[in-house]
Amino acid sequence: MGKGRLEAFSDTVIAIIITIMVLELKVPHGDSLQELLPLLPVFLSYVLSFVYVAIYWNNHHHMLQACTTVTGTILWANLHLLFWLSLFPFATGWMGENHFTAAPTALYGVVLLMAAIAYYLLQQAIIHAEGPDSILKKALGRDWKGKLSPVLYIVALLSGYKLNRFS
Amino acid sequence: MGKGRLEAFSDTVIAIIITIMVLELKVPHGDSLQELLPLLPVFLSYVLSFVYVAIYWNNHHHMLQACTTVTGTILWANLHLLFWLSLFPFATGWMGENHFTAAPTALYGVVLLMAAIAYYLLQQAIIHAEGPDSILKKALGRDWKGKLSPVLYIVALLSGYKLNRFS
Amino acid sequence: MGKGRLEAFSDTVIAIIITIMVLELKVPHGDSLQELLPLLPVFLSYVLSFVYVAIYWNNHHHMLQACTTVTGTILWANLHLLFWLSLFPFATGWMGENHFTAAPTALYGVVLLMAAIAYYLLQQAIIHAEGPDSILKKALGRDWKGKLSPVLYIVALLSGYKLNRFS
Amino acid sequence: MGKGRLEAFSDTVIAIIITIMVLELKVPHGDSLQELLPLLPVFLSYVLSFVYVAIYWNNHHHMLQACTTVTGTILWANLHLLFWLSLFPFATGWMGENHFTAAPTALYGVVLLMAAIAYYLLQQAIIHAEGPDSILKKALGRDWKGKLSPVLYIVALLSGYKLNRFS
Repeated sequence: MGKGRLEAFSDTVIAIIITIMVLELKVPHGDSLQELLPLLPVFLSYVLSFVYVAIYWNNHHHMLQACTTVTGTILWANLHLLFWLSLFPFATGWMGENHFTAAPTALYGVVLLMAAIAYYLLQQAIIHAEGPDSILKKALGRDWKGKLSPVLYIVALLSGYKLNRFS
Repeated sequence: MGKGRLEAFSDTVIAIIITIMVLELKVPHGDSLQELLPLLPVFLSYVLSFVYVAIYWNNHHHMLQACTTVTGTILWANLHLLFWLSLFPFATGWMGENHFTAAPTALYGVVLLMAAIAYYLLQQAIIHAEGPDSILKKALGRDWKGKLSPVLYIVALLSGYKLNRFS
Repeated sequence: MGKGRLEAFSDTVIAIIITIMVLELKVPHGDSLQELLPLLPVFLSYVLSFVYVAIYWNNHHHMLQACTTVTGTILWANLHLLFWLSLFPFATGWMGENHFTAAPTALYGVVLLMAAIAYYLLQQAIIHAEGPDSILKKALGRDWKGKLSPVLYIVALLSGYKLNRFS
Repeated sequence: MGKGRLEAFSDTVIAIIITIMVLELKVPHGDSLQELLPLLPVFLSYVLSFVYVAIYWNNHHHMLQACTTVTGTILWANLHLLFWLSLFPFATGWMGENHFTAAPTALYGVVLLMAAIAYYLLQQAIIHAEGPDSILKKALGRDWKGKLSPVLYIVALLSGYKLNRFS
């Protein structure tokens, strides 16, 4: 499969994800500005997720530029990443509707974490296919940041869970 | 019509199908983790359908690589396949909401079966257009697997139906 | 603007229209096959609209192949066509939910008619831009069929309306 | 990142926005033509927004033709524009459902204003990246119109708000 179609398919899926998230902003029935107030947390969670998905789209592009051939592993690693991104609208909606309380925020964190892991796996699949001298491997260097961020997500999730149990 | 536009159109439709399936995961109103429990079968059916649609997208690509010209028959055989794939979100949602009970699961099986038949017809249309020496025909060989899978679907459906009547 | 982007934009809009029409097939709550019975007219109207939109997509492609340059008029004539196509999901849903009764079916007819007129206007805009020797003009010949179909739609609508008043 | 992918991604997002706006036209339950009457303001607001989004899509294309390289600033300025455009379905739906009363119309105005500002910022980002001799800068000239339109939006919003308070 050509890289072009993989890119185009991923772009379309990401464009749909980023757009249907806005459907969680349900049109209120009244017509005063106060009606918008309860929508504020939903709006904020939408902004947050819009930025996250935009960052993934951006990084996804840069990473694929270093990819010259699409193997079966890369294809499925990419679909795995799209799967977790596709759960953003649900996790965003639940967190926004419940004003960032513990459980919905934890679920949001889990989805973020799984997307980060899926991204990492896709990166490894591309490096593996390109060989030890791949541009991507050199560009990443030892990449402390990339490996650390999933770990930090887990720490944040666990401590958030703990704090919550004792409060 | 160029093959490129047929591919791009199919990709967009498949990307939308795979993404709107997630809309069946309705955001729950409460904010405890228990609220997610009743969503589990919906989530599982989403995962299942995501994988199925992804396999179709993947195979669709490989098959079209062997296609050099787009005839009217290929065009409509492709739209026929997209039609059955477009029923995945409905069948998935119904099966998930009813915890995989008999009738919804049977409907899901019927949609799978029809998509498999549509795929087979598209394959035949391409082979017919490419002639007896087409790459696709050679790649498929006698293709026991492809012809058998719809038959197995039917057997599974009928026996499932029978078992259900006597239980 | 290049023709490629006009085609790609139209393809994406049409792909979304054809796919979101299926959202009118609301997942029933019960799990018996009888639950699907009331959905039958919705399903039939979906099949009908799927075929209509597919025909438009198909014809749209063939017509644009004869187009070499995109003027402002062509651009807006195309957006005008997409506007009427975008009303298909609404008209389809209303007609399906009301089992093809008079008013919803008339509205469906009006949307079909407006789309046919918009298509005709787009055709004229392309012929105008291409000049009297355009491939499209020659391909169409005198095109009785194209000019007649909107007229027939109007006759059908009016007679349907009349019949209904006296029944 | 290539300009092609930025264009394709923006096109897909805009195509989805223009299409999901129609989902605010909820299918009525009755089957008489009178049922459509309360939908008229929703329909009118849909037409209005369709035209606005179409104008943005059109101008976006022309502007990007003058863009030769995609910097990080252009990328994010573009995403910023898409963010405000993505709020069109919500603002359109609220305004239509409330028959163009004060607060929903003001919100619609705010979203229009923010999109106009985002468009202006994207323009500046491209001019900055292209240098003082860019085609875009020359094409725009002093561009009184572009700079004036956000100012006029603000004046309209404020005076509308004032009039409303005294009425």
